[in-house]
Amino acid sequence: MIPKGSSEISRQAIGRFPYYLKFLNELNLSRQEYVSAPMIASSLQLHEVQVRKDLAAVSRRAGKPGVGFPVTRLIDDIKRALHYDSRNRALLVGAGHLGKALLSYGGFDDYGLEIVAAFDADPSLHGSEIGGKTIFPLEKLDELSSRLNVRIGIITVPSNAAEEVCERLVASGILAVWNFAPTYLSVPEHVLVQNENMAASLALLSKHLAEKG
Amino acid sequence: MIPKGSSEISRQAIGRFPYYLKFLNELNLSRQEYVSAPMIASSLQLHEVQVRKDLAAVSRRAGKPGVGFPVTRLIDDIKRALHYDSRNRALLVGAGHLGKALLSYGGFDDYGLEIVAAFDADPSLHGSEIGGKTIFPLEKLDELSSRLNVRIGIITVPSNAAEEVCERLVASGILAVWNFAPTYLSVPEHVLVQNENMAASLALLSKHLAEKG
Repeated sequence: MIPKGSSEISRQAIGRFPYYLKFLNELNLSRQEYVSAPMIASSLQLHEVQVRKDLAAVSRRAGKPGVGFPVTRLIDDIKRALHYDSRNRALLVGAGHLGKALLSYGGFDDYGLEIVAAFDADPSLHGSEIGGKTIFPLEKLDELSSRLNVRIGIITVPSNAAEEVCERLVASGILAVWNFAPTYLSVPEHVLVQNENMAASLALLSKHLAEKG
Repeated sequence: MIPKGSSEISRQAIGRFPYYLKFLNELNLSRQEYVSAPMIASSLQLHEVQVRKDLAAVSRRAGKPGVGFPVTRLIDDIKRALHYDSRNRALLVGAGHLGKALLSYGGFDDYGLEIVAAFDADPSLHGSEIGGKTIFPLEKLDELSSRLNVRIGIITVPSNAAEEVCERLVASGILAVWNFAPTYLSVPEHVLVQNENMAASLALLSKHLAEKG
């Protein structure tokens, strides 16, 4: 359940880099050429030491004293470290509200994820398109997965259907599962399950509110 | 950006408890009275030591040697520790695909979250209902938030609108923000922002795939 990381970039740092990227892209758009760690730290309300450590993990070349890092180089370094420059094809299973939301979302491209097709058990959806992706019957999953060289399966079915869908995805050859169903999925060693654990977020919110009275 | 935890239950443990709960609820439904740490560990593929530690953090009363914990008591203990027994009212801002998905999702009740109303800038949506919740114009937010005693704001607007919406929510008196927009939100000390950072999940998936070749 906890991702096994072999690399030097921590889960926490990986969580921060999308914010760095967004900030750097904004600087780049406003044609700013250099950025310093203190500037990033104060804009994102992080500790300067942490920002320096994070940047050192992705960028071998140090910033110029008193000037900082070239913005475009830092953007490239972060994208490379997070593999946003690689392209990974995904299938989505479960075209309910959440599935539709993900299919319609245009922003996954920036992170190297391309959803190529969707699947649902409901025959009334078959052949329709959402966000330019066709919805197929589940029976087509195996064929399309191997034909389109898909490596990621996105699970947005209800909890009680998630395990069966996961087995099907794994059998079709995918290597990573992005799971939005609030259920534990058992997979072979070579497959990574990334759980989008909204229940945990809710627990943290409740905890904060309980502490604030 | 990293949740400040003052309590003894770690962020990681909080992430595991929803799975414990689901498993325990299933046992309860099949009328099993006792459960042991090794049983939970093997079902959820966790280490037994970790399960014991997690259970000790929420349940003061130890399990019976050779028998384990009474299932219903453990369910109650976990719910109490995670404050799932408290009720927190929330407003949702941004009734696009993701907003609609969250409004339609029936499962938040189990975690003590009740979405009482939704808001959107699009006049064509005003007055319509999704999942039994009415969509109001943004101008109504302040009034409804204080009248309904709302404590959580859910942000599902696009990135460029998120900051303004967040300021509006904070001004209306909410104490916690559940942020689905991929942007950093700056809030006063007493407000907690819980970011649903999908970009970080995508980075972890890409990393796994890059490592698997």
